[in-house]
Amino acid sequence: MNSIDNGQSYRPSARTRVRRVPQRARYDRAAVHAILDASLLCHVGYVVNGQPFVTPTAFWREGDTVFWHGSAASRMIESVDGAEVCVTVSHLDGLVLARSAFHHSVEYRSVMMFGRARVVADLAEKRRAAAAFIDRLYPGRNAGIRAASDNELKATTFVALDINEVVAKVRAGGVKDDLPDYFLPAWAGVIPFTTVAGAPIPDGCLRPQIQLPEHVGDYVGQRVDAVLLDNAVHLHERGSS
Amino acid sequence: MNSIDNGQSYRPSARTRVRRVPQRARYDRAAVHAILDASLLCHVGYVVNGQPFVTPTAFWREGDTVFWHGSAASRMIESVDGAEVCVTVSHLDGLVLARSAFHHSVEYRSVMMFGRARVVADLAEKRRAAAAFIDRLYPGRNAGIRAASDNELKATTFVALDINEVVAKVRAGGVKDDLPDYFLPAWAGVIPFTTVAGAPIPDGCLRPQIQLPEHVGDYVGQRVDAVLLDNAVHLHERGSS
Repeated sequence: MNSIDNGQSYRPSARTRVRRVPQRARYDRAAVHAILDASLLCHVGYVVNGQPFVTPTAFWREGDTVFWHGSAASRMIESVDGAEVCVTVSHLDGLVLARSAFHHSVEYRSVMMFGRARVVADLAEKRRAAAAFIDRLYPGRNAGIRAASDNELKATTFVALDINEVVAKVRAGGVKDDLPDYFLPAWAGVIPFTTVAGAPIPDGCLRPQIQLPEHVGDYVGQRVDAVLLDNAVHLHERGSS
Repeated sequence: MNSIDNGQSYRPSARTRVRRVPQRARYDRAAVHAILDASLLCHVGYVVNGQPFVTPTAFWREGDTVFWHGSAASRMIESVDGAEVCVTVSHLDGLVLARSAFHHSVEYRSVMMFGRARVVADLAEKRRAAAAFIDRLYPGRNAGIRAASDNELKATTFVALDINEVVAKVRAGGVKDDLPDYFLPAWAGVIPFTTVAGAPIPDGCLRPQIQLPEHVGDYVGQRVDAVLLDNAVHLHERGSS
């Protein structure tokens, strides 16, 4: 079942229909994909013996599928194969200071995805996924490093979740106070947050004459979400997704 | 039941005992509290009809309790009272580029907390919690804004989770390659990430002669985790926690 209608939007479900402040909800693919592609970290929710677990981990998107990975021995990896998961991705973009306590808020972008996760079993497909993840973060880097060995691939589990049941939520636009409160002599506004990449820290054992590669330099001093999004756009232009 | 032994450490449980790379696990209160206090965003995991949900939301700590809040009408708020939750807090501190695909990693700090959440029912206690949250983010701000009305407090649910069953995980220290790979002519190192606060954006309807308050100026140009931690330290010095 694919709930993408007309190729442009995902269809709301009971789990993804936003009940409160529905004008913050977005179901169009462009909005969902832009938030995912600007991100590196997701929070995977799963259930073990009726109890919830939330594990933070790195992920990436290819077309209408997100992937993450982990040690085959980890609790999260053991628990998600064929199981219902909720994968949430969030950017905290700033603090909103209103003139009343009640209207203080935060600016954010988030995506929640639901569905049954599946483990990627085939070794060749795992090899492709491992390389794709490196390439997504560091375009061209696979050419200069040692690829994963069969044993390393066997110790690593890749998990896929198809993006069908999904909602993005965006809060932006600053302060919304009750009318009478605008007369209060309080400062109101937004403190914007950005996550930026600092100067790279070379490994202490770096061989001499190793230049800083472009796929590292591209991050330095930049907003991380912008670099990740830019990498994804170039990747998708080269590929089919 | 309080699983804090000798007042300094939390006791590992079946859910919080780290199985993989156990040297990354920390159970001491100082480590757990420092990660929580440097944070504003948590991911709340809960179960509805056997299915996991992960909702991002703002939180704060007081002593051995964390609090978050939301509209009384939200699905998350409806679902967590008296229910088992997992609350996860994560900082992504950087990318680790190794000489082999397999040893690529990320630097992070995270906390996972488990337990039964409870709703704060008493109106006076809710009023205190609302003020405490503002004070935690913006020391002194309550004096200059309109406090929450009874109706606003009734529309807001505050949720508490006692910190008993908890584990912190920290990955730091950069590249760890297999010995033979150190001879490869690849750049290796860390790209550090920091989340910083930019120039504040005043609300368009700001009254004239309103000065930027210190509790806003303290963020500007600074690492957000450092400001949050600093605010928490001052708060705890003033209070009992």
